[in-house]
Amino acid sequence: MQNGRQAVPLEKSYLLLNHGPVTLVGSTHDGRSNVMAASWVMPLDFDPPKVVLVIDRNTLTRELIEASGEFSLSIPCREMAAQVLAAGSLSGRDGEKASRCGLEFFAASCVAAPLVGDCVAWLECRVIPCRDNQDRHDLFIAEVLAAQADPAVFSQGRWHFSDDCRRTLHYQAGGAFFVTGESFDASEQAPTGG
Amino acid sequence: MQNGRQAVPLEKSYLLLNHGPVTLVGSTHDGRSNVMAASWVMPLDFDPPKVVLVIDRNTLTRELIEASGEFSLSIPCREMAAQVLAAGSLSGRDGEKASRCGLEFFAASCVAAPLVGDCVAWLECRVIPCRDNQDRHDLFIAEVLAAQADPAVFSQGRWHFSDDCRRTLHYQAGGAFFVTGESFDASEQAPTGG
Repeated sequence: MQNGRQAVPLEKSYLLLNHGPVTLVGSTHDGRSNVMAASWVMPLDFDPPKVVLVIDRNTLTRELIEASGEFSLSIPCREMAAQVLAAGSLSGRDGEKASRCGLEFFAASCVAAPLVGDCVAWLECRVIPCRDNQDRHDLFIAEVLAAQADPAVFSQGRWHFSDDCRRTLHYQAGGAFFVTGESFDASEQAPTGG
Repeated sequence: MQNGRQAVPLEKSYLLLNHGPVTLVGSTHDGRSNVMAASWVMPLDFDPPKVVLVIDRNTLTRELIEASGEFSLSIPCREMAAQVLAAGSLSGRDGEKASRCGLEFFAASCVAAPLVGDCVAWLECRVIPCRDNQDRHDLFIAEVLAAQADPAVFSQGRWHFSDDCRRTLHYQAGGAFFVTGESFDASEQAPTGG
Protein backbone atom coordinates (compact mmCIF):
# COMPACT_ATOMS: atom_id res chain seq x y z
CA MET A 1 0.00 0.00 0.00
CA GLN A 2 3.07 2.19 0.34
CA ASN A 3 3.45 2.52 -3.43
CA GLY A 4 1.75 5.03 -5.69
CA ARG A 5 -1.30 4.62 -7.86
CA GLN A 6 -2.25 6.63 -10.90
CA ALA A 7 -5.21 6.18 -13.25
CA VAL A 8 -4.36 4.55 -16.58
CA PRO A 9 -6.49 5.76 -19.52
CA LEU A 10 -8.87 2.97 -20.51
CA GLU A 11 -7.59 2.83 -24.07
CA LYS A 12 -4.10 2.10 -22.75
CA SER A 13 -5.18 -0.46 -20.16
CA TYR A 14 -4.46 -3.42 -22.46
CA LEU A 15 -0.78 -2.53 -22.16
CA LEU A 16 -0.86 -3.66 -18.54
CA LEU A 17 -1.59 -7.24 -19.68
CA ASN A 18 -0.03 -7.28 -23.14
CA HIS A 19 3.22 -8.93 -22.06
CA GLY A 20 1.43 -11.82 -20.34
CA PRO A 21 2.07 -11.24 -16.63
CA VAL A 22 0.66 -13.27 -13.75
CA THR A 23 -2.40 -11.68 -12.13
CA LEU A 24 -4.25 -11.89 -8.85
CA VAL A 25 -8.00 -12.13 -9.31
CA GLY A 26 -10.04 -10.37 -6.63
CA SER A 27 -13.72 -11.13 -6.09
CA THR A 28 -16.45 -10.52 -3.54
CA HIS A 29 -20.10 -11.38 -2.99
CA ASP A 30 -22.44 -11.36 -0.03
CA GLY A 31 -19.76 -10.64 2.56
CA ARG A 32 -17.17 -13.09 1.28
CA SER A 33 -14.07 -11.93 -0.60
CA ASN A 34 -11.31 -13.93 -2.21
CA VAL A 35 -8.08 -13.72 -4.17
CA MET A 36 -6.50 -16.28 -6.48
CA ALA A 37 -3.55 -16.33 -8.85
CA ALA A 38 -4.29 -16.57 -12.58
CA SER A 39 -1.97 -16.74 -15.59
CA TRP A 40 -4.66 -17.49 -18.15
CA VAL A 41 -5.80 -13.93 -18.67
CA MET A 42 -5.19 -11.65 -21.65
CA PRO A 43 -6.56 -8.61 -23.48
CA LEU A 44 -9.40 -9.21 -25.93
CA ASP A 45 -10.12 -5.74 -27.29
CA PHE A 46 -8.91 -2.15 -27.16
CA ASP A 47 -12.01 0.06 -27.13
CA PRO A 48 -13.93 -0.57 -25.04
CA PRO A 49 -11.14 -2.57 -23.43
CA LYS A 50 -12.01 -6.18 -22.74
CA VAL A 51 -10.19 -9.15 -21.24
CA VAL A 52 -10.63 -12.92 -21.24
CA LEU A 53 -9.97 -14.95 -18.12
CA VAL A 54 -10.10 -18.67 -17.37
CA ILE A 55 -11.45 -19.57 -13.91
CA ASP A 56 -11.84 -23.20 -12.86
CA ARG A 57 -15.41 -24.15 -11.96
CA ASN A 58 -14.39 -25.63 -8.60
CA THR A 59 -12.97 -22.44 -7.12
CA LEU A 60 -14.58 -20.04 -4.67
CA THR A 61 -13.48 -17.25 -7.01
CA ARG A 62 -15.67 -18.75 -9.74
CA GLU A 63 -18.66 -18.78 -7.40
CA LEU A 64 -18.10 -15.16 -6.37
CA ILE A 65 -17.59 -13.94 -9.95
CA GLU A 66 -20.69 -15.78 -11.22
CA ALA A 67 -22.74 -14.28 -8.38
CA SER A 68 -21.42 -10.71 -8.56
CA GLY A 69 -20.61 -10.35 -12.28
CA GLU A 70 -17.40 -8.54 -11.37
CA PHE A 71 -13.75 -9.13 -10.59
CA SER A 72 -10.50 -7.26 -10.28
CA LEU A 73 -7.07 -8.05 -11.69
CA SER A 74 -4.06 -6.94 -9.65
CA ILE A 75 -0.63 -7.42 -11.23
CA PRO A 76 1.91 -8.52 -8.62
CA CYS A 77 5.67 -8.18 -8.78
CA ARG A 78 8.76 -10.18 -7.95
CA GLU A 79 8.92 -9.26 -4.27
CA MET A 80 5.44 -10.80 -3.90
CA ALA A 81 6.19 -14.15 -5.56
CA ALA A 82 5.79 -16.26 -2.41
CA GLN A 83 2.42 -14.64 -1.69
CA VAL A 84 1.31 -15.16 -5.30
CA LEU A 85 2.25 -18.82 -5.04
CA ALA A 86 0.23 -19.12 -1.83
CA ALA A 87 -2.74 -17.42 -3.53
CA GLY A 88 -2.48 -20.05 -6.27
CA SER A 89 -2.23 -22.96 -3.81
CA LEU A 90 -4.59 -22.30 -0.88
CA SER A 91 -8.38 -22.44 -1.22
CA GLY A 92 -10.66 -19.61 -0.23
CA ARG A 93 -13.14 -22.24 0.93
CA ASP A 94 -10.88 -22.98 3.91
CA GLY A 95 -11.36 -19.51 5.41
CA GLU A 96 -10.30 -15.95 4.65
CA LYS A 97 -7.44 -16.38 2.22
CA ALA A 98 -5.83 -12.99 1.51
CA SER A 99 -4.36 -12.55 4.98
CA ARG A 100 -3.24 -16.18 5.07
CA CYS A 101 -1.28 -15.44 1.89
CA GLY A 102 0.21 -12.24 3.30
CA LEU A 103 -1.88 -10.10 0.97
CA GLU A 104 -3.87 -7.01 1.85
CA PHE A 105 -7.01 -5.74 0.09
CA PHE A 106 -8.03 -2.18 -0.63
CA ALA A 107 -11.16 -0.78 -2.25
CA ALA A 108 -11.57 -0.51 -6.01
CA SER A 109 -13.23 2.52 -7.60
CA CYS A 110 -15.86 0.97 -9.94
CA VAL A 111 -16.44 -2.57 -8.67
CA ALA A 112 -17.01 -4.14 -5.28
CA ALA A 113 -14.24 -6.71 -5.88
CA PRO A 114 -11.17 -5.69 -3.87
CA LEU A 115 -7.73 -4.80 -5.23
CA VAL A 116 -4.50 -6.24 -3.83
CA GLY A 117 -1.99 -3.92 -2.16
CA ASP A 118 1.71 -3.74 -3.09
CA CYS A 119 0.96 -4.72 -6.69
CA VAL A 120 2.14 -2.65 -9.67
CA ALA A 121 -1.13 -2.33 -11.62
CA TRP A 122 -4.85 -2.96 -11.28
CA LEU A 123 -7.84 -3.46 -13.59
CA GLU A 124 -11.51 -3.43 -12.58
CA CYS A 125 -13.71 -5.67 -14.71
CA ARG A 126 -17.41 -6.39 -15.29
CA VAL A 127 -18.35 -9.74 -16.82
CA ILE A 128 -20.10 -9.76 -20.21
CA PRO A 129 -22.23 -12.82 -19.57
CA CYS A 130 -21.87 -15.74 -21.99
CA ARG A 131 -23.20 -18.98 -20.53
CA ASP A 132 -21.73 -21.17 -23.24
CA ASN A 133 -18.15 -19.89 -22.71
CA GLN A 134 -18.51 -20.01 -18.95
CA ASP A 135 -20.14 -23.45 -18.77
CA ARG A 136 -18.19 -25.23 -21.51
CA HIS A 137 -14.79 -23.57 -21.25
CA ASP A 138 -14.56 -21.85 -17.85
CA LEU A 139 -13.93 -18.74 -19.95
CA PHE A 140 -15.07 -15.27 -18.89
CA ILE A 141 -15.18 -12.21 -21.11
CA ALA A 142 -15.24 -8.90 -19.27
CA GLU A 143 -15.09 -5.19 -19.93
CA VAL A 144 -12.41 -3.16 -18.18
CA LEU A 145 -14.08 -0.29 -16.32
CA ALA A 146 -11.04 1.27 -14.66
CA ALA A 147 -7.28 0.80 -14.55
CA GLN A 148 -4.48 2.08 -12.37
CA ALA A 149 -0.73 1.56 -12.15
CA ASP A 150 2.18 2.52 -9.93
CA PRO A 151 3.70 5.43 -11.88
CA ALA A 152 7.15 4.33 -10.69
CA VAL A 153 6.90 1.33 -13.07
CA PHE A 154 4.18 2.25 -15.61
CA SER A 155 3.41 5.68 -17.04
CA GLN A 156 2.68 7.26 -20.43
CA GLY A 157 1.57 3.85 -21.67
CA ARG A 158 4.91 2.18 -20.99
CA TRP A 159 6.41 -0.12 -18.38
CA HIS A 160 9.78 1.09 -17.07
CA PHE A 161 11.16 -1.23 -14.43
CA SER A 162 14.16 0.14 -12.58
CA ASP A 163 13.84 -1.74 -9.28
CA ASP A 164 14.13 -5.49 -9.97
CA CYS A 165 11.83 -6.24 -7.02
CA ARG A 166 8.99 -4.44 -8.81
CA ARG A 167 9.24 -6.37 -12.07
CA THR A 168 6.18 -8.35 -13.11
CA LEU A 169 6.05 -12.17 -13.14
CA HIS A 170 5.30 -14.93 -15.64
CA TYR A 171 4.33 -18.32 -14.26
CA GLN A 172 5.92 -21.55 -15.43
CA ALA A 173 4.86 -24.47 -13.17
CA GLY A 174 5.70 -26.09 -9.85
CA GLY A 175 6.39 -22.81 -8.06
CA ALA A 176 8.75 -21.48 -10.76
CA PHE A 177 8.33 -18.04 -12.25
CA PHE A 178 10.12 -15.97 -14.83
CA VAL A 179 10.76 -12.31 -14.07
CA THR A 180 9.88 -9.91 -16.88
CA GLY A 181 13.31 -9.32 -18.41
CA GLU A 182 15.16 -6.67 -20.32
CA SER A 183 13.26 -4.33 -22.62
CA PHE A 184 14.49 -3.59 -26.14
CA ASP A 185 13.22 -1.87 -29.28
CA ALA A 186 13.21 -4.23 -32.26
CA SER A 187 12.46 -1.42 -34.69
CA GLU A 188 16.04 -0.25 -34.14
CA GLN A 189 17.39 -3.58 -35.35
CA ALA A 190 18.08 -3.99 -39.05
CA PRO A 191 15.53 -6.42 -40.48
CA THR A 192 17.19 -9.45 -41.98
CA GLY A 193 14.30 -10.17 -44.32
CA GLY A 194 14.62 -9.80 -48.08
CA MET B 1 15.93 -24.68 -39.23
CA GLN B 2 19.35 -25.46 -37.84
CA ASN B 3 17.98 -26.03 -34.34
CA GLY B 4 16.52 -29.21 -32.93
CA ARG B 5 12.92 -30.25 -32.55
CA GLN B 6 11.48 -32.78 -30.15
CA ALA B 7 7.86 -33.77 -29.59
CA VAL B 8 6.28 -32.27 -26.44
CA PRO B 9 3.67 -34.54 -24.78
CA LEU B 10 0.24 -32.99 -25.37
CA GLU B 11 -0.52 -32.73 -21.65
CA LYS B 12 2.59 -30.58 -21.21
CA SER B 13 1.98 -28.40 -24.25
CA TYR B 14 0.28 -25.65 -22.21
CA LEU B 15 3.67 -25.00 -20.61
CA LEU B 16 4.92 -23.61 -23.91
CA LEU B 17 2.41 -20.74 -23.64
CA ASN B 18 1.95 -20.46 -19.88
CA HIS B 19 4.40 -17.57 -19.43
CA GLY B 20 2.70 -15.45 -22.09
CA PRO B 21 5.20 -15.34 -24.96
CA VAL B 22 4.68 -13.73 -28.35
CA THR B 23 3.67 -16.20 -31.06
CA LEU B 24 3.71 -16.37 -34.84
CA VAL B 25 0.43 -17.66 -36.26
CA GLY B 26 0.80 -19.78 -39.39
CA SER B 27 -2.13 -20.46 -41.71
CA THR B 28 -2.81 -21.79 -45.16
CA HIS B 29 -5.74 -22.38 -47.50
CA ASP B 30 -6.16 -22.96 -51.19
CA GLY B 31 -2.54 -22.33 -52.09
CA ARG B 32 -2.07 -19.21 -49.98
CA SER B 33 -0.07 -19.28 -46.73
CA ASN B 34 0.54 -16.54 -44.21
CA VAL B 35 2.22 -15.69 -40.93
CA MET B 36 1.36 -12.98 -38.43
CA ALA B 37 2.54 -12.04 -34.96
CA ALA B 38 0.07 -12.50 -32.08
CA SER B 39 0.39 -11.76 -28.38
CA TRP B 40 -3.24 -12.39 -27.53
CA VAL B 41 -3.02 -16.15 -27.24
CA MET B 42 -3.10 -18.30 -24.11
CA PRO B 43 -3.87 -21.81 -22.86
CA LEU B 44 -7.51 -22.61 -22.16
CA ASP B 45 -7.39 -26.21 -20.95
CA PHE B 46 -4.98 -29.02 -20.10
CA ASP B 47 -6.54 -32.24 -21.39
CA PRO B 48 -7.29 -32.18 -24.19
CA PRO B 49 -5.09 -29.10 -24.48
CA LYS B 50 -6.84 -26.06 -25.86
CA VAL B 51 -5.85 -22.49 -26.62
CA VAL B 52 -7.65 -19.21 -27.22
CA LEU B 53 -6.43 -16.76 -29.83
CA VAL B 54 -7.62 -13.32 -30.93
CA ILE B 55 -7.36 -12.66 -34.69
CA ASP B 56 -8.59 -9.38 -36.16
CA ARG B 57 -11.32 -9.79 -38.76
CA ASN B 58 -9.49 -7.69 -41.34
CA THR B 59 -6.42 -9.91 -41.62
CA LEU B 60 -5.58 -12.47 -44.28
CA THR B 61 -4.75 -14.86 -41.43
CA ARG B 62 -8.38 -14.61 -40.25
CA GLU B 63 -9.61 -15.49 -43.73
CA LEU B 64 -7.27 -18.49 -43.99
CA ILE B 65 -8.11 -19.79 -40.50
CA GLU B 66 -11.87 -19.43 -41.06
CA ALA B 67 -11.55 -21.30 -44.36
CA SER B 68 -9.22 -24.08 -43.20
CA GLY B 69 -10.22 -24.49 -39.54
CA GLU B 70 -6.56 -24.82 -38.60
CA PHE B 71 -3.54 -22.76 -37.60
CA SER B 72 -0.10 -23.18 -36.11
CA LEU B 73 1.62 -21.27 -33.33
CA SER B 74 5.40 -20.92 -33.54
CA ILE B 75 7.15 -19.32 -30.56
CA PRO B 76 9.96 -17.05 -31.73
CA CYS B 77 13.00 -15.92 -29.75
CA ARG B 78 15.04 -12.82 -29.21
CA GLU B 79 17.29 -13.20 -32.23
CA MET B 80 14.13 -13.10 -34.39
CA ALA B 81 12.62 -9.93 -32.93
CA ALA B 82 13.02 -7.81 -36.08
CA GLN B 83 11.34 -10.52 -38.15
CA VAL B 84 8.53 -10.84 -35.60
CA LEU B 85 7.96 -7.10 -35.76
CA ALA B 86 7.80 -7.28 -39.55
CA ALA B 87 5.30 -10.17 -39.30
CA GLY B 88 3.19 -7.94 -37.06
CA SER B 89 3.41 -4.92 -39.38
CA LEU B 90 3.22 -6.12 -43.00
CA SER B 91 0.02 -7.50 -44.55
CA GLY B 92 -0.20 -10.88 -46.21
CA ARG B 93 -2.60 -9.30 -48.69
CA ASP B 94 0.32 -7.43 -50.27
CA GLY B 95 2.01 -10.65 -51.43
CA GLU B 96 3.86 -13.56 -49.90
CA LYS B 97 4.77 -12.34 -46.46
CA ALA B 98 7.00 -14.89 -44.73
CA SER B 99 10.01 -14.37 -47.00
CA ARG B 100 9.52 -10.58 -46.91
CA CYS B 101 9.82 -10.85 -43.13
CA GLY B 102 12.91 -13.05 -43.31
CA LEU B 103 10.96 -16.06 -42.05
CA GLU B 104 11.03 -19.58 -43.47
CA PHE B 105 8.21 -22.14 -43.31
CA PHE B 106 8.44 -25.87 -42.80
CA ALA B 107 5.75 -28.55 -42.74
CA ALA B 108 3.72 -29.34 -39.64
CA SER B 109 2.84 -32.91 -38.73
CA CYS B 110 -0.95 -32.77 -38.14
CA VAL B 111 -2.18 -29.62 -39.89
CA ALA B 112 -1.60 -28.04 -43.27
CA ALA B 113 -0.71 -24.69 -41.68
CA PRO B 114 3.07 -24.22 -41.85
CA LEU B 115 5.46 -23.84 -38.90
CA VAL B 116 8.12 -21.12 -38.74
CA GLY B 117 11.79 -22.10 -38.73
CA ASP B 118 14.33 -20.93 -36.14
CA CYS B 119 11.62 -20.69 -33.46
CA VAL B 120 11.93 -22.45 -30.09
CA ALA B 121 8.54 -24.22 -29.92
CA TRP B 122 5.54 -25.04 -32.10
CA LEU B 123 1.88 -25.98 -31.56
CA GLU B 124 -0.51 -27.32 -34.20
CA CYS B 125 -4.14 -26.36 -33.62
CA ARG B 126 -7.60 -27.18 -34.96
CA VAL B 127 -10.38 -24.64 -34.44
CA ILE B 128 -13.38 -25.67 -32.32
CA PRO B 129 -15.96 -23.62 -34.22
CA CYS B 130 -17.95 -21.05 -32.25
CA ARG B 131 -19.55 -18.45 -34.48
CA ASP B 132 -20.55 -16.16 -31.64
CA ASN B 133 -16.99 -15.89 -30.26
CA GLN B 134 -15.51 -15.52 -33.73
CA ASP B 135 -18.04 -12.99 -35.01
CA ARG B 136 -18.53 -10.90 -31.88
CA HIS B 137 -15.09 -11.06 -30.30
CA ASP B 138 -12.59 -12.20 -32.99
CA LEU B 139 -11.90 -15.02 -30.52
CA PHE B 140 -10.94 -18.52 -31.63
CA ILE B 141 -10.91 -21.60 -29.43
CA ALA B 142 -8.79 -24.47 -30.73
CA GLU B 143 -7.55 -27.87 -29.69
CA VAL B 144 -3.80 -28.51 -29.71
CA LEU B 145 -3.12 -31.60 -31.85
CA ALA B 146 0.68 -31.68 -31.67
CA ALA B 147 3.51 -29.77 -30.02
CA GLN B 148 7.26 -29.62 -30.43
CA ALA B 149 10.12 -27.68 -28.88
CA ASP B 150 13.83 -27.20 -29.32
CA PRO B 151 15.24 -29.47 -26.58
CA ALA B 152 18.09 -27.01 -26.06
CA VAL B 153 15.59 -24.60 -24.44
CA PHE B 154 12.57 -26.76 -23.44
CA SER B 155 12.63 -30.34 -22.20
CA GLN B 156 11.03 -32.42 -19.44
CA GLY B 157 8.23 -29.88 -19.26
CA ARG B 158 10.55 -26.97 -18.41
CA TRP B 159 12.07 -24.01 -20.19
CA HIS B 160 15.82 -23.68 -19.59
CA PHE B 161 17.27 -20.75 -21.46
CA SER B 162 21.06 -20.63 -21.48
CA ASP B 163 21.67 -18.70 -24.72
CA ASP B 164 20.11 -15.23 -24.37
CA CYS B 165 19.45 -15.12 -28.12
CA ARG B 166 17.05 -18.07 -27.75
CA ARG B 167 14.91 -16.54 -24.98
CA THR B 168 11.24 -16.02 -25.75
CA LEU B 169 9.65 -12.58 -26.19
CA HIS B 170 6.79 -10.60 -24.65
CA TYR B 171 5.35 -7.74 -26.67
CA GLN B 172 4.80 -4.26 -25.25
CA ALA B 173 3.92 -1.78 -28.01
CA GLY B 174 5.54 0.38 -30.68
CA GLY B 175 8.22 -2.19 -31.54
CA ALA B 176 9.30 -2.75 -27.92
CA PHE B 177 9.59 -6.23 -26.46
CA PHE B 178 10.56 -7.71 -23.14
CA VAL B 179 12.84 -10.71 -23.13
CA THR B 180 11.72 -13.55 -20.85
CA GLY B 181 13.90 -12.93 -17.81
CA GLU B 182 15.49 -14.82 -14.98
CA SER B 183 13.80 -17.95 -13.63
CA PHE B 184 13.37 -18.53 -9.90
CA ASP B 185 11.53 -20.92 -7.60
CA ALA B 186 9.17 -19.07 -5.26
CA SER B 187 8.50 -22.21 -3.21
CA GLU B 188 12.02 -21.81 -1.83
CA GLN B 189 11.18 -18.36 -0.47
CA ALA B 190 9.78 -18.06 3.01
CA PRO B 191 6.16 -16.93 2.79
CA THR B 192 5.59 -13.67 4.56
CA GLY B 193 1.91 -14.32 5.19
CA GLY B 194 0.48 -14.93 8.62
